Amino acid sequence: MLGRSIGRGRSASLRPGGTATARMGLKFDYESLAQQRIQRLFSHHHGLHLVLSRYISSDPLPRKGSRALRIAYRLAALLGSAVVVLGIGIVGFFIYDASTYATEHANQREVDVAALALNPRHGGPKNLPILEVCLDDNDSESMRRQKEKPRLVILGGGWGAVSLLKELEPENYHVTVISPKNYFLFTPMLPSATVGTLGLRALVEPIRRIIHAVGGHYVRAQAENVDFQSRLVEVSQTDCNGNEQRFYVPYDKLVIAVGSVTNPHGVKGLEHCHFLKDINDAREIRNKVIQNLELACLPTTSDDERRRLLSFVVCGGGPTGVEFAAELFDMLNEDLIQLFPKLLRNEISVHLIQSRDHILNTYDETLSKYAEDRFARDQVDVLVNSRVREVHPDSIIFTQKQDDGTIVTKQLPMGFCLWSTGVSQTPFCKRLAAKLGSAQTNRHALETDTHLRLNGTPLGEVYAIGDCATVQNNVADHIVSFVKRSLTWKHGASAVDTDPSKLHLRFNDWRAIAEQVRKRFPQATDHLKRLDKLFAEYDRDKSGTLDFAELRELLVQIDSKLTSLPATAQRAHQQGQYLAKKFNALARAVNSGRLIRELAKAEETPDVDAAVYKAFDYKHLGSLAYIGNSAILDLGHGRGFAGGLWAMYAWRSIYFAQSVSFRTRVLMAMDWAKRGLFGRDLMSY
Amino acid sequence: MLGRSIGRGRSASLRPGGTATARMGLKFDYESLAQQRIQRLFSHHHGLHLVLSRYISSDPLPRKGSRALRIAYRLAALLGSAVVVLGIGIVGFFIYDASTYATEHANQREVDVAALALNPRHGGPKNLPILEVCLDDNDSESMRRQKEKPRLVILGGGWGAVSLLKELEPENYHVTVISPKNYFLFTPMLPSATVGTLGLRALVEPIRRIIHAVGGHYVRAQAENVDFQSRLVEVSQTDCNGNEQRFYVPYDKLVIAVGSVTNPHGVKGLEHCHFLKDINDAREIRNKVIQNLELACLPTTSDDERRRLLSFVVCGGGPTGVEFAAELFDMLNEDLIQLFPKLLRNEISVHLIQSRDHILNTYDETLSKYAEDRFARDQVDVLVNSRVREVHPDSIIFTQKQDDGTIVTKQLPMGFCLWSTGVSQTPFCKRLAAKLGSAQTNRHALETDTHLRLNGTPLGEVYAIGDCATVQNNVADHIVSFVKRSLTWKHGASAVDTDPSKLHLRFNDWRAIAEQVRKRFPQATDHLKRLDKLFAEYDRDKSGTLDFAELRELLVQIDSKLTSLPATAQRAHQQGQYLAKKFNALARAVNSGRLIRELAKAEETPDVDAAVYKAFDYKHLGSLAYIGNSAILDLGHGRGFAGGLWAMYAWRSIYFAQSVSFRTRVLMAMDWAKRGLFGRDLMSY
Repeated sequence: MLGRSIGRGRSASLRPGGTATARMGLKFDYESLAQQRIQRLFSHHHGLHLVLSRYISSDPLPRKGSRALRIAYRLAALLGSAVVVLGIGIVGFFIYDASTYATEHANQREVDVAALALNPRHGGPKNLPILEVCLDDNDSESMRRQKEKPRLVILGGGWGAVSLLKELEPENYHVTVISPKNYFLFTPMLPSATVGTLGLRALVEPIRRIIHAVGGHYVRAQAENVDFQSRLVEVSQTDCNGNEQRFYVPYDKLVIAVGSVTNPHGVKGLEHCHFLKDINDAREIRNKVIQNLELACLPTTSDDERRRLLSFVVCGGGPTGVEFAAELFDMLNEDLIQLFPKLLRNEISVHLIQSRDHILNTYDETLSKYAEDRFARDQVDVLVNSRVREVHPDSIIFTQKQDDGTIVTKQLPMGFCLWSTGVSQTPFCKRLAAKLGSAQTNRHALETDTHLRLNGTPLGEVYAIGDCATVQNNVADHIVSFVKRSLTWKHGASAVDTDPSKLHLRFNDWRAIAEQVRKRFPQATDHLKRLDKLFAEYDRDKSGTLDFAELRELLVQIDSKLTSLPATAQRAHQQGQYLAKKFNALARAVNSGRLIRELAKAEETPDVDAAVYKAFDYKHLGSLAYIGNSAILDLGHGRGFAGGLWAMYAWRSIYFAQSVSFRTRVLMAMDWAKRGLFGRDLMSY
Repeated sequence: MLGRSIGRGRSASLRPGGTATARMGLKFDYESLAQQRIQRLFSHHHGLHLVLSRYISSDPLPRKGSRALRIAYRLAALLGSAVVVLGIGIVGFFIYDASTYATEHANQREVDVAALALNPRHGGPKNLPILEVCLDDNDSESMRRQKEKPRLVILGGGWGAVSLLKELEPENYHVTVISPKNYFLFTPMLPSATVGTLGLRALVEPIRRIIHAVGGHYVRAQAENVDFQSRLVEVSQTDCNGNEQRFYVPYDKLVIAVGSVTNPHGVKGLEHCHFLKDINDAREIRNKVIQNLELACLPTTSDDERRRLLSFVVCGGGPTGVEFAAELFDMLNEDLIQLFPKLLRNEISVHLIQSRDHILNTYDETLSKYAEDRFARDQVDVLVNSRVREVHPDSIIFTQKQDDGTIVTKQLPMGFCLWSTGVSQTPFCKRLAAKLGSAQTNRHALETDTHLRLNGTPLGEVYAIGDCATVQNNVADHIVSFVKRSLTWKHGASAVDTDPSKLHLRFNDWRAIAEQVRKRFPQATDHLKRLDKLFAEYDRDKSGTLDFAELRELLVQIDSKLTSLPATAQRAHQQGQYLAKKFNALARAVNSGRLIRELAKAEETPDVDAAVYKAFDYKHLGSLAYIGNSAILDLGHGRGFAGGLWAMYAWRSIYFAQSVSFRTRVLMAMDWAKRGLFGRDLMSY
């Protein structure tokens, strides 16, 4: 491009332009000036020097005769500049890269490790070692300071735990994370990893890197039990000889965020199914799918066997099942046909078994219909109103409710089955729930109050978030407390002593109570909008006041409208952030002495959490699902949209933005680009 | 940047520049013109329109007062151009990406598959199914044409097979590749993958994609035996029920490139070791290393146990062992210390056990010394003259020869052991060698002649390349044939009938024989340089002629100087390319009818290979080894160099260039950039 610019300058000077100057006026004066300058540049400088002076000088550009040439010149300059900047960028990156290699190695120096970290004291109910001091407690100045802070122990390394860690301000707590997996998994993209649209590395982030940011500690172990009295978590790990070793981790505050396990729904033969909870599941699924394709190509495989091997069944029509079916279909349709015999494409079938009458049944009906239409077009066989009864190694038995209400049992040959029918409680959570007895009544998850404190444990010590927990919305159960608080606040302490059955609440009293309910149960806010209407409706005797029975009836009716929060990454994320903000606020309040002053004012048992921070309020931001080169986005309240490639790019953008770190974002972008350039990797290893 | 350019233009117009025009002459005429244009632009256009007109117009740039400002303006323009071009590039990529999604799906159409492909005929010595027609033989026009071509069957999917496939011209052969792994593995970078410097995906390329380029077929199965008479390969595969299924694949030309297995050297306890032959080995090693680091952090791990867990032992001082030790050390030194307790770094030890007196003993001694110095500085414990006797789950027993010649037995506690002490023959190759009896005398590899034809099989049907094969350099064994050929050629057929023991070869005869030897054994060329000297040396009786015994002695002495070729990727690569070129030449010769004419001229048994192509000649291009943020490059013949980061970048560049596809190159570059940006991934999954 530079050669051209110089060539132009020279050839222009050879033209008889000088005599034309007068005729053309200003314009040609300018051109001759340019010619002189170019000529001077050309005669005085060479090579790189010339390039540089051309780039950074503000000398006018040579004036061309043709407009097209001028534009071409400008475009070439644009491209040239880009190449130069890119080149500088690449050289810069290499210089940076070279600086990242540790050429000087730290020699083995004395490291300050407390004796208690090397030989922990034994104790607790089972006389196990207690992790009172960590190996890295003295590793840095800030870690040394944190030793004296309250011990915050987090069980789990998923969405809840990581959101908490990312929001937590460092140096307020001595943080320890206990998780059997040393990585955080970006679960929403897991179906993409099963067929190689994304690589496994783009979905995981080392948990130690996340913990490092808050100066915390990591223990690779599994939580087994909690002693709420002595505030000890009992954890287990398998040592290198395969023996289980147990020890205690003490806490001041404990956050349970251990997630969930796959729900077997009591179906026999699930050992023949694949699951999709972990990164290894994704790899195993990819290997199995490719394995089946390869087996289908062999001459020893009969026709029936080939059709069976290529029959892919997904049990569960929720987002995971639907997205896996979509990704699988994409792979079969975009990559398989390139490299495998054409016969395979013809004999492949993808089936989706759903127990409800629609797939994606938690989504808006229009959107779930869109997904069904899409699948119908893509020849993905959606079987609704169907329940799996038993899984055999080579087939699935399921019952299907017909339109006339009769139930028919069917058998589907299958070569691969994914089981993704919802979640259930981990054995650890079941153990805790049993221990807490009557305080825990939910069979599916640990119950917390709206401050996310585990019911049945000392206030402000144990929290539960994410899939393993559910927020109990028992408004009516707190009726006495609501009445007491609001009347005390309005009429003084004496008003409360009266017999509740003799209460007659006027509209103003009701308004005060509603305010209390809203504060304590933010989820109820939506149902407390028209207070006058509610008052009129439940004032059955039209007395102009609500008596205790009428109030109770009103609150029970609100309870019935409150649904439990979905077991999604979004909820876990919000709960983690909520706890982090609360813990930050608590630390600030303690440090400033404000908390002590406030608690001194309180008359009843002090509720520290309520004093420093509001109750947890879930804000549903929407649900997404990828359905095969198209996506649906349900924003709640009937709003949402569905579409083709543009919706897919929107879906990707949202998850790109939500991804846990800059690293995973770069990796995801790279992997998507790879798919575009090279397709998916049809390899099993 | 644009805002600034406009701002400058405007502020310039506010200056009292108009009156100065006359004084400054041409220069200010130009500036006022620029001002007018800028003002016009600014008043008429806005936003993007303005940007574009500014970019593609050739109007002069506004003239600035200060030189620094001018330079800044130019630099900003440079950067701006780069951003614009980059933006266009990104948009372009998204448009391209969108085009890669199959939004229109091929409906299930009738696919033309031969009945014999679906129900193969049974036959052969064991009456197994015979893969005479492939499922995809009718999938495209070119595949249909290839059905009639000679069947080229390649066993294996490593360096040899892939080099052959990449060099082979399509449509000359009906190509079938049989390999139990459906990917090609870029073995030289395997040590990098064990610690996450590279991801696994960057090292593998789907074998189907490589085969696709020559319109070949792939069978995922394992070669078990070959029937050289009926020209059938017996292969086995495990079906989905875990049963072994066997079938035959017929061939006209067979290439055996099945590689090698790890050499156990008869040591007990290798089940406690890791190997590094496959991509899964790399993942298992990474998991084990991280697992040990995590176990070392737990409070239940005692001091001794921690030291043992962090004792990493590598058995074998060849390139694989050395590179793994280097990569491991890099990871421990660059990444581990960031995220794990400092104590770990102090207690880690890396040991390298080598049986010879130097590591990298096949390299130039200066270079191997450099590597040893580097390791000494890095505190990698190199144990030379040491032989492993037995591996226990938690320790290694080895004997070490002391300087005084005594042999001492030592025990080394270990938490991880890599076994990389060379290669040995696969069971398949052992079976073939046994079958071929006296034609195969080498215990370590299949013997071929210098045309890479497997000794003992019909000429021109079976070839063996790569690690599984060795080229037999038995010059002396061919003495009679050499004498016959050269004398026939010089003196006519009658000369050959004389008794060989009565031969008296003059220097000219010897020269003719040497020429024959060079042609048939290209590796001997180096030892046949001074023919006069050799003649004089072996003409013991100074008769001026060589008799038969003297000639034999001369050739035997040359034989003794010829070493067998190294079992490296480089050799396999060259052999694969050689075979492809020969097969291409053969196809051309057959097609042109030249071959038939040439063979008609031949008097003895026709040697088709020799007629169409020269014998295989290995050209050693050099050996590389990465030794921890530095590398050594041995170019042979005493040349070579070693150095720090620059050598590492050179080492990377060479492998980058050698990588199998554009895809793997892009992935490798991305992975190296990832390491620079984010470090290695310290996760196990």
